[in-house]
Amino acid sequence: MVFDLYIYASSLLLKFPGKDVHLPQTFKNISSSHSIMTSLNSNIIKKISAIVGKEYCTTRMADLHCYSYDGKGIIYLPEAVAFPRTTEEVSEIMKLASLHRFAVVPRGAGTGMTGGSLPIAGGLVMAMTRMNSIVEIDHRNQVAVVEPGVITIDLQKAVQAVGLFYPPDPASLKFCTVGGNAAECAGGPSAVKYGVTKDYIMGLEAVLPSGEIVTAGTRTEKGVTGYDLTRLFVGSEGTLGIITKLYCRLLPLPESKATFLVLSKSLDKATELVSTILNRGIVPSTLEYMDRTAIRIVSDLLSEPPAKGTEALLLLELDGTQKSIDEQTVRLRQLLADDDDISFRQAKNEAEVKELWLARRSISPAAFKLKPHKISEDVAVPRSRIPELVRFTEKLSQELDITILTFGHAGDGNIHVNIMIDKANANELERGEKAKELLFVHTISLEGTLSGEHGIGITKSAYLGLELNEATIKLMKSIKSVMDPHNILNPGKIFPETIESGDK
Amino acid sequence: MVFDLYIYASSLLLKFPGKDVHLPQTFKNISSSHSIMTSLNSNIIKKISAIVGKEYCTTRMADLHCYSYDGKGIIYLPEAVAFPRTTEEVSEIMKLASLHRFAVVPRGAGTGMTGGSLPIAGGLVMAMTRMNSIVEIDHRNQVAVVEPGVITIDLQKAVQAVGLFYPPDPASLKFCTVGGNAAECAGGPSAVKYGVTKDYIMGLEAVLPSGEIVTAGTRTEKGVTGYDLTRLFVGSEGTLGIITKLYCRLLPLPESKATFLVLSKSLDKATELVSTILNRGIVPSTLEYMDRTAIRIVSDLLSEPPAKGTEALLLLELDGTQKSIDEQTVRLRQLLADDDDISFRQAKNEAEVKELWLARRSISPAAFKLKPHKISEDVAVPRSRIPELVRFTEKLSQELDITILTFGHAGDGNIHVNIMIDKANANELERGEKAKELLFVHTISLEGTLSGEHGIGITKSAYLGLELNEATIKLMKSIKSVMDPHNILNPGKIFPETIESGDK
Repeated sequence: MVFDLYIYASSLLLKFPGKDVHLPQTFKNISSSHSIMTSLNSNIIKKISAIVGKEYCTTRMADLHCYSYDGKGIIYLPEAVAFPRTTEEVSEIMKLASLHRFAVVPRGAGTGMTGGSLPIAGGLVMAMTRMNSIVEIDHRNQVAVVEPGVITIDLQKAVQAVGLFYPPDPASLKFCTVGGNAAECAGGPSAVKYGVTKDYIMGLEAVLPSGEIVTAGTRTEKGVTGYDLTRLFVGSEGTLGIITKLYCRLLPLPESKATFLVLSKSLDKATELVSTILNRGIVPSTLEYMDRTAIRIVSDLLSEPPAKGTEALLLLELDGTQKSIDEQTVRLRQLLADDDDISFRQAKNEAEVKELWLARRSISPAAFKLKPHKISEDVAVPRSRIPELVRFTEKLSQELDITILTFGHAGDGNIHVNIMIDKANANELERGEKAKELLFVHTISLEGTLSGEHGIGITKSAYLGLELNEATIKLMKSIKSVMDPHNILNPGKIFPETIESGDK
Repeated sequence: MVFDLYIYASSLLLKFPGKDVHLPQTFKNISSSHSIMTSLNSNIIKKISAIVGKEYCTTRMADLHCYSYDGKGIIYLPEAVAFPRTTEEVSEIMKLASLHRFAVVPRGAGTGMTGGSLPIAGGLVMAMTRMNSIVEIDHRNQVAVVEPGVITIDLQKAVQAVGLFYPPDPASLKFCTVGGNAAECAGGPSAVKYGVTKDYIMGLEAVLPSGEIVTAGTRTEKGVTGYDLTRLFVGSEGTLGIITKLYCRLLPLPESKATFLVLSKSLDKATELVSTILNRGIVPSTLEYMDRTAIRIVSDLLSEPPAKGTEALLLLELDGTQKSIDEQTVRLRQLLADDDDISFRQAKNEAEVKELWLARRSISPAAFKLKPHKISEDVAVPRSRIPELVRFTEKLSQELDITILTFGHAGDGNIHVNIMIDKANANELERGEKAKELLFVHTISLEGTLSGEHGIGITKSAYLGLELNEATIKLMKSIKSVMDPHNILNPGKIFPETIESGDK
């Protein structure tokens, strides 16, 4: 099998010249402070198959490839993929993994941006896609009980049908899973008003690396019985346990919505406006921002392209009852009308709303018009410091002679910084990496954070020490160690470390 | 010193015949799975004094007594009390405690209801009251940076002065501290709309039992850099670390408020109304409930006492802009007007609002009109199950021939169940304890939780296994062990265990 994998990997390298292709690291010799990974021999594969059923465990090359990448675009081949259907099956697999010390990497839809679901140490990918039942929608208590493999938009539609609302709306909501969202603590445009995934996970069930099944949180709004394990699992990027059930908080569905496009000839004024809006008691459900580069690459999607000299665009939505929207709209118009540098219009119908959102959602793919590759970061700063952050990226862009576009969730200070490069140009790649590092350092100096919603995964782990002191990282690692003493669950993620390999 | 303490404790028993008085357990021999506590000899006291300054470390009996009890009303004498002023001082004390293995019990204002701040193993009480600076109110980003000893109402007033709002409002808000609120995850009437303390702690700084200083969370709305340590400390009842700084989320101050009194001749209709209101898009900022017994004991505080036959009372508040309140008021009136069993009125002025709140806030003290002691529980159930819970307490009351009153935060299912007893009557005490146990069992069967906002402390730890399975409790304990390997920080809380003692 080792030989096969090498041949296959080589063929992948030929097929995907732009991608980094990695063999399972169990076949390499990488030193580690933690543990020694074992490879999945046929005996283990047989046992996994016996747990989930033969048809739900695969080692076929074509299948392995499908579970070898995520939104980051790097390829790490797993040795096998299992598709459990029940918590008990997940538990049995983890008991096996504890016994034989093989790596297990839980995976939702693989839409993560930082490599969180990549099997970088080989081993087994545990695909949660078959555990996709909406178990219950408790209308009276505004709670949904779901399995982790439920697609986010499916949950949204199901609760909408009974007049309820599940706010988390990551860009990948048509594909990603609620379990994956919870593991990565996904955000989205609605976070400015509604918060992120962690704010909607009231409780959960998880399987520990040992195979033990634990529960966290409650089905009630309040609950302080012991430590808050819910939040420990949420955002832990699949390194502490495998989430097998979630209790999701729901809200009443907003009755109405209004969408506004705000164009500014001044970047400073646009970012200043964000603070002003929020401090005047206007609480938009969306307050998205794009810089002039982002505007340029999507402007052909707009029926009325922004005038020349437009430096920034804000996409703003209000939701609630029609009367409360009307009231906020009046206030908003008063705020916006005062300035010659700022123009705005309200979307008149659903088609216009769709057009604006299409433009916003197209930035990320359209960025490839500029360069074939991107370094995509999602730093967050206190929102009053957005102007400083954006000006810094402009300075970086000039000084390093590199294309950088910024857009994202201005309302909560979470700015997507896309550093556009051509990896074939080694010098440009180096300048891109330099820009990323300087961006992180500056973000921290602005009292910001390395990641607003994408997580650390493998792409930011080297920079963890910029934000967290040694004692804090040590504490996090000690929690990981006590929960996963053999480092078998999603090894090599979040914390800067290497993984040792070798069959036993 | 041992002899002195015994004499003092005996004198306390004479002075406070209704209270349980306990000597520091370091002077007893109690077996433990964990560690051996040392007592604070004069050498250690000298070192603590050197850290905080002589005037801020006391072993005077009168002082020790002041720090020997909390809202639960049991007395456990500490051996010394220290009043650190800085994070560094807290850190130095914890290093000393790690070295000499003495118990440290952090304490805010001692208003907790479940014994969380009681020095049940003796040792040092670390009173956080001198660390009471509001370090910063960041108006533009709606964040307050505070030290743990800030009184909750002082923070509320300070942010209100600049048009902002810190929602958590535990009943003790005039005395309790933000640090204590965070440690216990305090709730309050506003939780139905605004959530509880945990929802307003964005980040924090804490000192570990080892003396290491860690940071958790971010100053940004979003942040997923490593594990969510913020929530691990919040609600951990001072067992994992000592919180030394908090980043508090603020909201724009609501512009207006309206208060309603709803009286119902039917308990079922009143509790049903709670769900109906919340499902019709009305989001009250308060939705408090009291049963007929609670009404009876406070009715003399109301200028218009409820008519005979009133089975339940709801106190409901709306906040927001005046227009949004008007809109919700119309909806509320439509909902309420349909039923002959329900009457309501809106408070016409601030005096009437105060009167209604006085009545609500007086239930807890007024309960002592019924019996000299109470067993005060704060279970929470999914709000649709409140009728079942309340009916069960009525059944309990009849079957065990005991007075039980229920009131509390109906909007989030968090019901305060007060079991009224006279401890001098051994049989009644026994029936009271029986009622408490049956209440817990029934609450769990309704998918509820042992504690909505008071925490587990020492009063509910024996019942933890009713709600959490063995693997979950084991996991929590393993986190405690890895963070506090010598079990020196607030030992004996949350988890059912005993503490060994003995000088070294």
